[in-house]
Amino acid sequence: MSVYDILNSSFIKWMDVPEGDRDIVISSRVRLARNLGEIPFPHLLDQITGSKSLELISHAWKNTPGPLLADMDMIALDQLSPLDRQILTEKHLSSPQHADATCAYRAILVNHDGSLAAMVNEEDHLRMQCLLPGIRLRECYATAQALDDEFEYNLDYAFDEERGYLTACPTNVGTGLRASVMVHLPAMQMSGQLNHVLQNIGQLGMAVRGLYGEGSQPVGNFYQISNQVTLGQTEEDICTYLQTVTEQIVEQEGLLRERLKTDLKYQLEDKIGRAYGILCNARVIASDEALSLLSDVRLGVDLGILTGISLLALNELMVAIRPAHLQKLGGREMDAIERDIKRAEVIQAKMTSVK
Amino acid sequence: MSVYDILNSSFIKWMDVPEGDRDIVISSRVRLARNLGEIPFPHLLDQITGSKSLELISHAWKNTPGPLLADMDMIALDQLSPLDRQILTEKHLSSPQHADATCAYRAILVNHDGSLAAMVNEEDHLRMQCLLPGIRLRECYATAQALDDEFEYNLDYAFDEERGYLTACPTNVGTGLRASVMVHLPAMQMSGQLNHVLQNIGQLGMAVRGLYGEGSQPVGNFYQISNQVTLGQTEEDICTYLQTVTEQIVEQEGLLRERLKTDLKYQLEDKIGRAYGILCNARVIASDEALSLLSDVRLGVDLGILTGISLLALNELMVAIRPAHLQKLGGREMDAIERDIKRAEVIQAKMTSVK
Repeated sequence: MSVYDILNSSFIKWMDVPEGDRDIVISSRVRLARNLGEIPFPHLLDQITGSKSLELISHAWKNTPGPLLADMDMIALDQLSPLDRQILTEKHLSSPQHADATCAYRAILVNHDGSLAAMVNEEDHLRMQCLLPGIRLRECYATAQALDDEFEYNLDYAFDEERGYLTACPTNVGTGLRASVMVHLPAMQMSGQLNHVLQNIGQLGMAVRGLYGEGSQPVGNFYQISNQVTLGQTEEDICTYLQTVTEQIVEQEGLLRERLKTDLKYQLEDKIGRAYGILCNARVIASDEALSLLSDVRLGVDLGILTGISLLALNELMVAIRPAHLQKLGGREMDAIERDIKRAEVIQAKMTSVK
Repeated sequence: MSVYDILNSSFIKWMDVPEGDRDIVISSRVRLARNLGEIPFPHLLDQITGSKSLELISHAWKNTPGPLLADMDMIALDQLSPLDRQILTEKHLSSPQHADATCAYRAILVNHDGSLAAMVNEEDHLRMQCLLPGIRLRECYATAQALDDEFEYNLDYAFDEERGYLTACPTNVGTGLRASVMVHLPAMQMSGQLNHVLQNIGQLGMAVRGLYGEGSQPVGNFYQISNQVTLGQTEEDICTYLQTVTEQIVEQEGLLRERLKTDLKYQLEDKIGRAYGILCNARVIASDEALSLLSDVRLGVDLGILTGISLLALNELMVAIRPAHLQKLGGREMDAIERDIKRAEVIQAKMTSVK
């Protein structure tokens, strides 16, 4: 399995829908930020120090006898087309900033199913992530930590006894850990409780962002909730805390969904039916509108109002309708209008094939 | 065939789609206003004079040996429930004003397929109409005239050698004739030419109204175009003139449709596809929105973009989604929300059965 397989597949691990998982949490992710001692942080790198950093990490990847690293493929970003770099971002394997850069000492590592990835020389020298479907923060952390251990076998991390892992941005110092969950909260939105809940989450020291993390606006009622504090708590504490907050949100969203189903039966079924009807019949559709309608359809599937559509298909569509994926599928560069047409085509094919 | 059959049927003659007719003109209608000599105009009637008027007309209906009158059923309006009176209006067989009144001397006559109807003691003593599918003004006039002749066999019309037929409202004096066509002009609307065309029609001495004539706002790009002048022209001239104007409008709308199909292919298919998708999947839908979406679907059928849906089904739906028809079908009085739910159900059933 190579990076190219991941680039050409519509599926990666987090899109899976494990049996018994609540449908409200789409995915969980733990990311660890690490830096190499004796090498400047990435924003200070030049060609020589950058290459040195890449070389050390590449050496660790090749020479560590660990099963996780052995399952990973590594590729320099300048070996990928801009479109392919964007595809990695759309699949949540790379940051937009990382995908934008073309300098030769940036790279990415991905395992066979995309559940493990690492960016080399992004904001930190090494940012590892484990990304899994559903609410599995502890498993994400355990796997990310195991990968971290494999890397550390052949790498000297910048570590301070008092402050912990040192990072380019002080907000990551300490554990270097960011844990996040992607949640779908349409009922909170519809019942007008969303802003209140999001404010509460903020007061609990959590950040709320859109589908693509920092700087992305929420669309389609999809929210990424993550810890803000990385210092003064253990990794386990951070994950447990986020897990607890998430479980509370899930419970509240679940209750509101049941209430909507009873109190606004027809309006809810109408909204969901219309979304389904438009997605199956539109010929031109913009990204935000599509995500918003997919959110309605997802709610319909979760509540049993729509049948025959799988959450896996909806997860795949959320990524398949992004600009780079559409252009990859179309085999050429496309302007916004062409993408809107292609997007409608992709959605229609998926929706009518699964129905 | 009785009035009750018409009340319970979803079909009446004007909904038909004659082979070879252009789809832009839905129906043609000719109405003749007549009054009885020696009896005051209806707005001055009391119980005695009103009954006299009704009696004279009823006598003519029963005793004239004509085939048209023999095919007509007559019923006093106070014999019908308010819902049934409204149903006659929704089918275009009665005016809203006539259906509203409950005095015992008002009545209605309808033939077996609803192509001929007459109101007794509405604004004039007798208002006969012939209503046919497509653009058939001459046939409408010939039939209305034949019915008029049958009535006149046993009735004394108020007629003045110089002014012609006398009517309650001076705008009808002369021929007492109003000819109208119901046209569907979505391409004019989409291409921004509608206002200009409607202004021109006004300058040609024609009136433009909505689906339900005087006082009704246009919805769904359906327009009723009719003559304003009834005096100083022969009946044939009035019909020929409206026919010519209509043919020009049809030609222009046809050209604009072809242009839209070429220039805005995707946007047009998108609009039509979404309308179809919403109509098939909505659970709650208001009347105006439904008509507007039915207009888009109709255009899709006319242009061959949607297949498997008949114009007849769409014509039937235009009437079946009106408040009285929905309540008749539901078997009970319904408030606006209940009607919106029933409307969505009726549309979905029709759209998915014909697809």
